[in-house]
Amino acid sequence: MSAAERRLSELGLELPEPPPPAAAYVPVARAGEVLYVSGQVAVAQGQPVATGKLGGEVDTRVGTRCARQCAVNVLAQLKAELGSLDRVRQVVRLGVFVASDPAFTQQHVVANGASELVADVFGQAGLHARAAVGVPSLPMDSPVEVEAVVLVE
Amino acid sequence: MSAAERRLSELGLELPEPPPPAAAYVPVARAGEVLYVSGQVAVAQGQPVATGKLGGEVDTRVGTRCARQCAVNVLAQLKAELGSLDRVRQVVRLGVFVASDPAFTQQHVVANGASELVADVFGQAGLHARAAVGVPSLPMDSPVEVEAVVLVE
Amino acid sequence: MSAAERRLSELGLELPEPPPPAAAYVPVARAGEVLYVSGQVAVAQGQPVATGKLGGEVDTRVGTRCARQCAVNVLAQLKAELGSLDRVRQVVRLGVFVASDPAFTQQHVVANGASELVADVFGQAGLHARAAVGVPSLPMDSPVEVEAVVLVE
Repeated sequence: MSAAERRLSELGLELPEPPPPAAAYVPVARAGEVLYVSGQVAVAQGQPVATGKLGGEVDTRVGTRCARQCAVNVLAQLKAELGSLDRVRQVVRLGVFVASDPAFTQQHVVANGASELVADVFGQAGLHARAAVGVPSLPMDSPVEVEAVVLVE
Repeated sequence: MSAAERRLSELGLELPEPPPPAAAYVPVARAGEVLYVSGQVAVAQGQPVATGKLGGEVDTRVGTRCARQCAVNVLAQLKAELGSLDRVRQVVRLGVFVASDPAFTQQHVVANGASELVADVFGQAGLHARAAVGVPSLPMDSPVEVEAVVLVE
Repeated sequence: MSAAERRLSELGLELPEPPPPAAAYVPVARAGEVLYVSGQVAVAQGQPVATGKLGGEVDTRVGTRCARQCAVNVLAQLKAELGSLDRVRQVVRLGVFVASDPAFTQQHVVANGASELVADVFGQAGLHARAAVGVPSLPMDSPVEVEAVVLVE
């Protein structure tokens, strides 16, 4: 088991079978040593963690949990691609899209659910740049979608 | 004619003169072997394919056609930059922004219009990672905007 | 003083102490020679330049000024990371998110505030690809957020 997977296990998290892409694309594509991970929605065991919008039916606490689950799904896709998360050298960017009522302006708080998980699991190698923005709606009514750019060995 | 252009021709598509950027930037910028293609809107022969939002005046079928046209415009920009689409080694990421009413949650279906064209034209080299998200509105009221990251020779 | 900083000075701009990230991530992350700069909001001297949305309480002129300030903050983060802006070889992508009422479709005009500053400061090395899209809302109610991908020596 890799160090990152041990840390996930300590956090009580298990990597799911990575959700298949919902459409005509792949979960992970490569440009040399840089992997691009497709946007992951907040699904666990095939079920949505929640649906709807921040500032609407989803509160910040639940939104943050959704962001964390999106990040878990990003890691599941990386493990499926790489075999082991130990091959991750640096998570370089997370794109965090938060389904938001126009009055909701705490996207950065929600996005921390993803950022903190990644930093916790990888340590220094998990310290990433980030864009966190509101969107009116997301595929399958997910409250959050997270994509990633990752440098690997 | 390159293999990709032959395939476009079989699909009854011709690459347009690439639309000029609408502002103070360039259509394609490079970091070594990686090209970044600016967001392309749904314009054909200088006219919008449609305007408005999914979940509003634009239905999923028309939105999908818009996404396909955005992808055609991405390819036109790549050909203008590279001379030939045969120099594309891998399309690694599409960013697909879908102008959406807050109740519309089928962005992934609309985005397939772009993803399927790229996969059809390039085969394995067209299998990309993707983020598909809703946005409230886009430049020139385009229903869709598509940007790309592409690995080249 | 680097050429880029001289140009900033001619424009009457001074690079601020870079705003600290608002959350669990870093302002700049690296994948080899490519830097990813986290999304920067329109803050100057610790205060928002404006708050709200384009098409609402923020007009295009103010929105453009916000985009420019976001770009200044991107440059401040780059200087903090690199020591000197002369180490920038090419700004390859700006992601510009514009908080927008659904009826507002001039995101490309607003985004020019960022694009023109970067092109002005770096010349050819500032000519970037770009995606400019609307969003319903942004962290801290900023009217604009700008992220960047930059090739360095």
